[in-house]
Amino acid sequence: MNYKLMRYVIGWLIIFESVFMFLSALVAVIYREKAVYSFLISMGIGLLAGALLIVRKPKNKSIHAKEGFVIVSISWVVLSIYGAFPFVLSENIPNVLNAVFESVSGFTTTGATILNEIETLEKSILFWRSFTHWIGGMGVLVFIMAILPLAGGSNIYLMKAESTGPDINKLVPRMKNTALILYGMYFGLTLVEIFLLLMAGMNLYDALTTAFSTAGTGGFAVKNDSLAGYSPAIQNIVTIFMILFGVNFNIYYMILCKKLKNTILNTELKVYLGILAAATLAVAINIYHIYENFGTAIQQSVFQIASIMSSTGFATTDFNLWPEFSKMVLVVVMMIGACAGSTGGGIKVSRIVILGKSLIKELEISVHPRNIKKVKLNGRFIEHEVIRSVNAFMVAYIAVFAISTLLISLDNFDFTSSFTAVAAMINNTGPGLEAVGPVENFAKFSVLSKCVCIFDMLAGRLELFPLLILFAPTTWKK
Amino acid sequence: MNYKLMRYVIGWLIIFESVFMFLSALVAVIYREKAVYSFLISMGIGLLAGALLIVRKPKNKSIHAKEGFVIVSISWVVLSIYGAFPFVLSENIPNVLNAVFESVSGFTTTGATILNEIETLEKSILFWRSFTHWIGGMGVLVFIMAILPLAGGSNIYLMKAESTGPDINKLVPRMKNTALILYGMYFGLTLVEIFLLLMAGMNLYDALTTAFSTAGTGGFAVKNDSLAGYSPAIQNIVTIFMILFGVNFNIYYMILCKKLKNTILNTELKVYLGILAAATLAVAINIYHIYENFGTAIQQSVFQIASIMSSTGFATTDFNLWPEFSKMVLVVVMMIGACAGSTGGGIKVSRIVILGKSLIKELEISVHPRNIKKVKLNGRFIEHEVIRSVNAFMVAYIAVFAISTLLISLDNFDFTSSFTAVAAMINNTGPGLEAVGPVENFAKFSVLSKCVCIFDMLAGRLELFPLLILFAPTTWKK
Repeated sequence: MNYKLMRYVIGWLIIFESVFMFLSALVAVIYREKAVYSFLISMGIGLLAGALLIVRKPKNKSIHAKEGFVIVSISWVVLSIYGAFPFVLSENIPNVLNAVFESVSGFTTTGATILNEIETLEKSILFWRSFTHWIGGMGVLVFIMAILPLAGGSNIYLMKAESTGPDINKLVPRMKNTALILYGMYFGLTLVEIFLLLMAGMNLYDALTTAFSTAGTGGFAVKNDSLAGYSPAIQNIVTIFMILFGVNFNIYYMILCKKLKNTILNTELKVYLGILAAATLAVAINIYHIYENFGTAIQQSVFQIASIMSSTGFATTDFNLWPEFSKMVLVVVMMIGACAGSTGGGIKVSRIVILGKSLIKELEISVHPRNIKKVKLNGRFIEHEVIRSVNAFMVAYIAVFAISTLLISLDNFDFTSSFTAVAAMINNTGPGLEAVGPVENFAKFSVLSKCVCIFDMLAGRLELFPLLILFAPTTWKK
Repeated sequence: MNYKLMRYVIGWLIIFESVFMFLSALVAVIYREKAVYSFLISMGIGLLAGALLIVRKPKNKSIHAKEGFVIVSISWVVLSIYGAFPFVLSENIPNVLNAVFESVSGFTTTGATILNEIETLEKSILFWRSFTHWIGGMGVLVFIMAILPLAGGSNIYLMKAESTGPDINKLVPRMKNTALILYGMYFGLTLVEIFLLLMAGMNLYDALTTAFSTAGTGGFAVKNDSLAGYSPAIQNIVTIFMILFGVNFNIYYMILCKKLKNTILNTELKVYLGILAAATLAVAINIYHIYENFGTAIQQSVFQIASIMSSTGFATTDFNLWPEFSKMVLVVVMMIGACAGSTGGGIKVSRIVILGKSLIKELEISVHPRNIKKVKLNGRFIEHEVIRSVNAFMVAYIAVFAISTLLISLDNFDFTSSFTAVAAMINNTGPGLEAVGPVENFAKFSVLSKCVCIFDMLAGRLELFPLLILFAPTTWKK
C-alpha cells in the first residue's frame, strides 16, 4: 500500500475543499451572516492540515488497483467529515452525527436531510450544502486529476473507483485530459442551467443552488417544499436538466466531436430515454384522476420520474400520496437509476442492459446448448470481465441492501419505510416512501440507522466495491 | 420439438394424477361426502383423456434440453388445471380462476389460499388440497420417471427442469434409480412424520394432511388458524420435519450410505442450519417482550422461521403483529429459501453460497488483479457454467419480481402487501405480510393479480427458466 501517496492525495483534497469553502464564505459576507467565521475557521484548519500532508512529495507516484480503491474510499470519508465542519461550527447543525449525515448526503449527491426546517438555516450554509452536491457529482478526485500532475498513468485506477458505471471510457488517451474535458462539460452545462433559471425569473441565489443540486443530481433545495413553490417554467427547466445530467457525459463529448451517429445508436441512451418515457406515461395515466387535466398529470409525472430516476430527489408534489402503482414505478426507476458515466446514482441503465442481454443469452443457451454467443453492446462485444463484475455488483447490491434493511428495521418503522429508506440511500436518490417520503426527513432515525445510511450513501456513490474492499483482510495484507 | 413424446408424457401424467385422486375419493366415501362424485367424474375424464394420449407410443423417445424444459412446463400447467377439476365440480371452489389458483398453489407447494373459510369445505376436498402438496413437492415427472421406462438417458433433462437448485446430482448412474431412491426416501420420511404426529395425539386425518403439507413444504392446513390450535408437541414435530424437508435429499442418501463425513462437511447444510439458528435467535430476542418467557419466544420463533425458510408457510401465530425487525428477518429467510434438491422453495441456500463466494472472489480479484482463483464448494471446484447460470437465475428472479410487483400494485394494496405477495408466490412460501399475512388470504386480489400470482408460483417452483423459455421465440423455431 502506497501510504505516502495516499497522504499526499488526501492533503490536496483537503486544500481543494477549503478553497471551495471560500465561495460559501463569500456568500456569508454578502448576506452578513455569522457563518462566515465558521467557514474561515474551517478553511484555516483545512489549509493547515492539507499543507502538512503535502509538504513531503512521495517519490513513488505509481499506484495499483488496490490503492485506487482504498485512496478513493478514504478520500470520500475525509471529504465528508471535513465538509461537516461548517455545519457544526456555525451551530446550524450542532449534532455531529447529523452534520456528517448531511455532508455525506451532499457529497454523495443523495440529497436526504435530517433537517426538519430548512429555511431557518443561514443562506451561506444552505449554499455550501448545495455546493457539496456539485463537488461530489462529477467526483472530486477526477477534479484533482484534472488540475494536478499527479500519478501519471496510474490515475486510471482513481477514475475507475470514483466514476460511475460498469466500465470507464477514456475520451482521449491521457486521463488528465479526459478529466479536464469532463469537468469542462460539467461546468458548461451547469452555467447553461443557471442562465436559463435566471431567464425564467429565479433569483441568483436560488438559481445557483438549484443548478448545483441538479448538476450533481443531488436534490438539496433551499425551500421547505423543495421545488413545489416555483413556476412551471422553472420546474420544466429543472426537469430537462435532471434528465441531461443523468446521461453519460461521453455522449456530450461525442456530440461536441460531431459523432452524431454514435449518439443516436447508443443503446444505454435509448433505453434510458425509453424507460423515462414509458414510466412517465404509465404514471400520468395512473395519477390522471388526481390532477385537473392530463397536461398537469404529465408535467407532475415527468418531473417526479426524472427526479427519481436521475437520483436527484427534488419534488414538486408529495408523491407519497399517489396510488400504489405510481409509487411502485418510482421505486423501480429509483433502482434502475441513471446512465453510467453520469452524475446520477442507482444500478445504472448500462448494467441493466448488460444483465438483460446476458439473461437472454443464457435462456438461448439453455434451449440450444451448443449455440455459444457473446453479448454485444453498441455494436461491440462486452468483455467477459465486465459481465462478471456487473454480476458481482448485483450480488453486492443485494447483500448490502438486505443487511441494511434488517438493521434499519430495528427502528420499527414499517416495511415500506425501511425498504425505501435503504433504496433512497444506496441509489443516492434522497426521498423514499412513508416515513422517508418527500415531505419527511431522516431526523427520526436512531444513531445506528443513521450510521447505516451514511455507509449506504458512500457505498452507493462509489458503487460498492471500493468501500467493501476496505473490509477485506486481503487488502491490508503485505 | 418432439411433440409426440410430449403428448405421451402428458398422457401418463394425467393418468397418474387421476390415480392419485382415487385416494381422495376414498376419503369422500369414508366421510360420506358428495365430493365423491366430483372425484369419480374427474377421474373418468382424466383416465379417458390420458388413455387417448398414450395409445400411440412415440418411436423417438429421446429429448434434448429444450424439450426437457418445455415438457416440464406444460406438464405442470396441465397438472394444475386438471387438479382443479374436483374443486370446481364439487362446487367447493366454484370460481374457475380461484380453483386453478388453489390447485397451482397446491402443486407448487406454495400454500397460499383464496379461501376465506377453510373448515366449511368437505374433508375429502381438503385432503386432495393437501395431497397436491405431496405430489408437487418431489416433482411429478420425477415420479413418472421412477415408475415408467420412459426416455432412457434423456430423462436427465426432465429431472434438470423439475428439480430444485443450481445443479443436479445423480445419486446412482441411472436416472430412473435415482428417482426411485428419492421417492423412497420422501415416502419414508413422510411415514415417519405421520407416525410421530399420531403418537403426539393427532387424529389420522389431520396427521395425514399435515404430513403431506409438511413433506411438500406446502403449508395448506385443514384448520382456519393453521397449526395454532395444536399442542406444542405437535407443533415441535412439524417444526423438525419442516427443517428436514428443506434439506437436500442427497444428504439423506449419504447418511443411508453411511458417508457421515460428507454430510457433516456439506457447506449448504451448514449454512442452512446456521441461518436457521441465527434467525431464530435474533427473532426470539426481538419478540421476547410479547411472550411470557424466553422458551415460548424461542418455540414461536423457530416454528415461524423454519416454516418460512423451508417455504412451508404454516403459522402458529400471526407474525404480522411482530415487530418490524422480526418481519424483515422472515422476508429475508423467505427469499433465501431451503436447500437445493429439497422440496422447498426460494432462491436456495446453495445459490446464496455460490453467489457469496463469487462476490468474495471478485473482491479479491479487484485487489489483486493477477490472482485468479476458482470458487470451491464442498471441496470441489464449481463449474463456470453453474456460476453463470446462478447469476442468470438471479437476474431472472429480480426481473420477474419487479414486473410482478408493478402489476400487482395496480390493485392499490400497500407496498408491503404487494412486495411480500410476490415474494410469497415466487418463493412458494404462502403467506406474506399485511394484506397477505398469515391470517389473510388472496381472495381480495383482482383477476390480473391472481393470474400474475399463478405465473409466479409456477415460475418459482420450476425455478424460472423452464417457464420463461416458453416465451422465447427461439424455443419454437424449427
